[in-house]
Amino acid sequence: MLYIIGLGLGDERDITLKGLEAVRKCHKVYMEAYTSLLSFGLSTDGLSNLEKLYGKTITLADREMVEEKADDILSDSHDADVAFIVVGDPFGATTHTDLVVRAKKMGIEVKIVHNASVMNAIGICGLQLYRYGETVSIPFFTESWRPDNSRHILACIISCYIKSKVVTVSYIRVKEPSLESLCRGRKLYEPPRYMTINTAIEQLLEIGQAREDPVYTEDTECVGFARLGSEDQMIVAGAMRQLRMIDFGAPLHCLVIIGKTHPLEEEMLDFYRCRA
Amino acid sequence: MLYIIGLGLGDERDITLKGLEAVRKCHKVYMEAYTSLLSFGLSTDGLSNLEKLYGKTITLADREMVEEKADDILSDSHDADVAFIVVGDPFGATTHTDLVVRAKKMGIEVKIVHNASVMNAIGICGLQLYRYGETVSIPFFTESWRPDNSRHILACIISCYIKSKVVTVSYIRVKEPSLESLCRGRKLYEPPRYMTINTAIEQLLEIGQAREDPVYTEDTECVGFARLGSEDQMIVAGAMRQLRMIDFGAPLHCLVIIGKTHPLEEEMLDFYRCRA
Repeated sequence: MLYIIGLGLGDERDITLKGLEAVRKCHKVYMEAYTSLLSFGLSTDGLSNLEKLYGKTITLADREMVEEKADDILSDSHDADVAFIVVGDPFGATTHTDLVVRAKKMGIEVKIVHNASVMNAIGICGLQLYRYGETVSIPFFTESWRPDNSRHILACIISCYIKSKVVTVSYIRVKEPSLESLCRGRKLYEPPRYMTINTAIEQLLEIGQAREDPVYTEDTECVGFARLGSEDQMIVAGAMRQLRMIDFGAPLHCLVIIGKTHPLEEEMLDFYRCRA
Repeated sequence: MLYIIGLGLGDERDITLKGLEAVRKCHKVYMEAYTSLLSFGLSTDGLSNLEKLYGKTITLADREMVEEKADDILSDSHDADVAFIVVGDPFGATTHTDLVVRAKKMGIEVKIVHNASVMNAIGICGLQLYRYGETVSIPFFTESWRPDNSRHILACIISCYIKSKVVTVSYIRVKEPSLESLCRGRKLYEPPRYMTINTAIEQLLEIGQAREDPVYTEDTECVGFARLGSEDQMIVAGAMRQLRMIDFGAPLHCLVIIGKTHPLEEEMLDFYRCRA
C-alpha cells in the first residue's frame, strides 16, 4: 500500500491522527522535498522534529529522485506499506498525481490522507473561497525572458480578475539545473529561490503597464500572505503600491488580487488592512 | 481565546494534532451543525465518537444558536478557552467569517486550526486545483422558483466552464423554516434535504437546454463525488447522461464539470471513468 499523506501548512503537529497512524505503521517514509523544502523550516530542525514525532527515519526525496526513481519507491509498496509525505495536501502539485497514476498502473493500492493546503487556508483573509478564480504561478523574469510576448500570464489574470480574484501562489525554484550547465551537458544546480510578494507585484505591474487598457494598477487592492498556516503567518491587505514596500519575511509568499467584494468580506479584510 | 478548528472530511480521526490539543484544553466545545450535520454521520454515533476521542462534551450549535446567540458563545471566550469545531476547514462557510468578525470586534483573540475541505480535497480526481474556476451552489428548484429569469447561475457556470472547470458543491438545507410557516409568523422547520448529483444534473440540463447556445449538454464530461474524504467515498467520471443514472448513495455530493484537460489529468480521470 502506498500512502500519500498531507502534512498541512504549519509544523509537524499539523498532521492528522489518521495521517500519523499511517506513517507510524509504514516501513519506509519518503518526504517530498522539492516543492516544499522552504515551507516547513526543514533547513533548521524541522526534519528531526518530524522524525521524532513519527518515530521513523525520513528519506528526503528531491525532484530527481521522485521523477527518476519513482519505480524503485513504488516497487517497495507492492509488498509493504510505504508513506510519501507532502507539505499541504497531496494534490497541490502535479508530481503527486503522476506518482498516483504510476502506482495504479503497477496495481499498487493507493490511499490518500488529506490536509489543509494554501488553496483552502487562504480563505482566512475573509474572501469567500467559492468566488476565487483560477490560480496562476508567477515565474521569475530573466534578462532574456519576459512574458510580454506570450501574454499567457496576463490572459489568466485578466479573466480571473474580472470575475472575482486571483491567487498567485509562490513560485519556488529548488534544485533547478542552470540554463548554462544544461547547455554544457552537465547538471549544475542553481541556488534555491522563491518568489516574494514584492517581486511578484513588480513583475505584475511591469506586464500590466505594457497594456493599453490595464486591468490592474498600483492602486489595485490585494492581500499578501507569508507563511500561511504557521505560527508566525503574516497577512496584509492593501494596494499593490503599499504591499510592494512591505517586508513579508521568510517564504512562502502568495498574493491575492481582490475583485468585487461583499460587505462581510470587507469587514474581515479590515482587520488585515495596511495602515501605512 | 476562541479556537475555530477544522475537523477535515472523513471522521473523528481527521482532526490534526494541533486541533486535538486545542479542543482538549478548552472548557467549552461547540460544534457547528447546520452545514455539516449530514457529512459526519452524526445522526448515528458520530458525535459520541468525537466526544470520546476529545474527552469533552460537545454542544451542537445549529444555525439559530450561532446567529442569534453568538454573543453568548463569544462572551465566554473572553476569559476562557472556547472551541468552535467545524467539518472541513473553518473558512468553507460564510458563517464562520461572521463569527470571527464578531469576536475580533469584541476584542477576543481568535486562533484558526486549518484542515482539508472539499475545496482542496477535490484535487483527488486528477484535475489540477489551480485550474478550477469559481464554485457555484445549485439550489433546489421549486414549483414557483426556477432560475430561468435570473440567469445568474448559468452565467457563473458559463464563465467558469469556458475557462476551465466548475465545482458545484452540494446545497444542503438543514432546519430551514418553511415558506408557509414564515408567512404565518411562526417558525416550522422543513425536513433536512441535500442536493444529489442526479438532481443537480437534471436541473443543470433543464436550464442549459433553455438556451439557444448551450455551453454544456448531456454529453459533457463531469466528475461526481460522494462522501469525499471518507472511507467509503465514491468518485465517478463520465458524461452527464451517465452520471445522472448512478446512485451515489449517502450525502454529501458534489459535481465538477470538466473543461479542457491535460494528458496527465486524463490519465488520472481514466481510473474513475464510468464503464457503463
